[in-house]
Amino acid sequence: MKILRYEKEGETGYGVLKGDRIQPLKGSLFGSFTICTEEIPRDEVRLLSPLDPNKLILIGRNYAAHAAEGGKPVPEEPLMFLASPTAVIGPGEIIRLPNLEDRIDHEAELAVVIGKRGKGIPRDRAKEYIFGYTCGNDVSNRILQKKDGQYTRAKSFDTFKPLGPWIETDLDPSNLSVRLTVNGEVRQDGRTEEMIFPVPVLVEAISAVFPLEPGDVILTGTPSGVSPLRPGDEVQVEIEGIGSLTNRVEG
Amino acid sequence: MKILRYEKEGETGYGVLKGDRIQPLKGSLFGSFTICTEEIPRDEVRLLSPLDPNKLILIGRNYAAHAAEGGKPVPEEPLMFLASPTAVIGPGEIIRLPNLEDRIDHEAELAVVIGKRGKGIPRDRAKEYIFGYTCGNDVSNRILQKKDGQYTRAKSFDTFKPLGPWIETDLDPSNLSVRLTVNGEVRQDGRTEEMIFPVPVLVEAISAVFPLEPGDVILTGTPSGVSPLRPGDEVQVEIEGIGSLTNRVEG
Repeated sequence: MKILRYEKEGETGYGVLKGDRIQPLKGSLFGSFTICTEEIPRDEVRLLSPLDPNKLILIGRNYAAHAAEGGKPVPEEPLMFLASPTAVIGPGEIIRLPNLEDRIDHEAELAVVIGKRGKGIPRDRAKEYIFGYTCGNDVSNRILQKKDGQYTRAKSFDTFKPLGPWIETDLDPSNLSVRLTVNGEVRQDGRTEEMIFPVPVLVEAISAVFPLEPGDVILTGTPSGVSPLRPGDEVQVEIEGIGSLTNRVEG
Repeated sequence: MKILRYEKEGETGYGVLKGDRIQPLKGSLFGSFTICTEEIPRDEVRLLSPLDPNKLILIGRNYAAHAAEGGKPVPEEPLMFLASPTAVIGPGEIIRLPNLEDRIDHEAELAVVIGKRGKGIPRDRAKEYIFGYTCGNDVSNRILQKKDGQYTRAKSFDTFKPLGPWIETDLDPSNLSVRLTVNGEVRQDGRTEEMIFPVPVLVEAISAVFPLEPGDVILTGTPSGVSPLRPGDEVQVEIEGIGSLTNRVEG
């Protein structure tokens, strides 16, 4: 099931995508909801980011080839940190580069949406806590990332975390193609099976430290091929079984 | 005004401290509220953490003497990162050490509570966005902090962020004594005037990156004198003009 958030005539709501039509959801996304029989044509709505995350949890260097291109060792344990949820934008929104002199890269990532609160979740039960998956672009200011050592600032600027286009609830995340194009040219082309720590291991490792809660989003790390974004670029993240997330870049 | 959150007979509420009595607040803490004339004796309630923070923003190495004791340079700009708000506990609650082999330190810190949303706040207007101040203890696993490089995990374990005992809304933060004792023995004894980046500069620097929002808490860095906590310890943070925050440590 593909669950999306939309805006229509100033009202926002959740819905299920059925071909080129949307069936609105009533109720609570992470609680119980019903699917209405009413149908809205997809071209009558504007898609929003599928959620405003609660915690936005980032995983560093989870693909060996990306760690290598950054000149960093592969971590022994999942490397977790947080970014500000205020950085999230939806499909079709503009990524704004606050500083044209700094190198600001795209990073295509599988995003995991948590649906249920859990602490100390064993990897073999991770699935019970996952609501679904969406595409993420972990836009990162490399200059500030290096300068700070801590990655939060470099990755928390407004518009630096596109998510979308919707949440796919029925998906096996273990071996999906993760691709990113800039102006139609392929820059990143990896598979989730290359993750050093697969999704269930990430859920186990994070929830060993702090509880995962409904609305938390885990960005699971990026394959190799990161490159700088420039004003005017159109950047697209495409993940097998989910769909594609497109954003334009402005200075 | 000292605003506290309390639990009484299973109900929680906000109130204003008047000597040994509490006058309940009705309304919204960051919106508009009224102070009731009803009075509750302070010894009839249990104090809670004064809020469940929205974002929990930490500042690294903001006192030169602490940077030196950690063998790290002083940052050129405020070093910001995030911890999980789920780590917050209140006065009198237990700090639990998840791993007795690791070195887990106390860090006494002035905590700033944001009351109003703002982006790009200039330092000379920071005050308008600050609701008040409380005491914080930024408990940190030094082994994981070093291992990860990123500080989020080391500082986000459950119970690692005591806050309290209340929010003081009328306070000049520029030159306050910040002291910490373990079992009555002074371990940290600094003054906020030693901050490399004072509170208004932190508000400016953070809000240049992402919006500050009502309920956000900034932990402003710790003076020198950090030391390991052991099961059975009683740790107390005392900040001039606010009060003291006491927590016991268990393994």
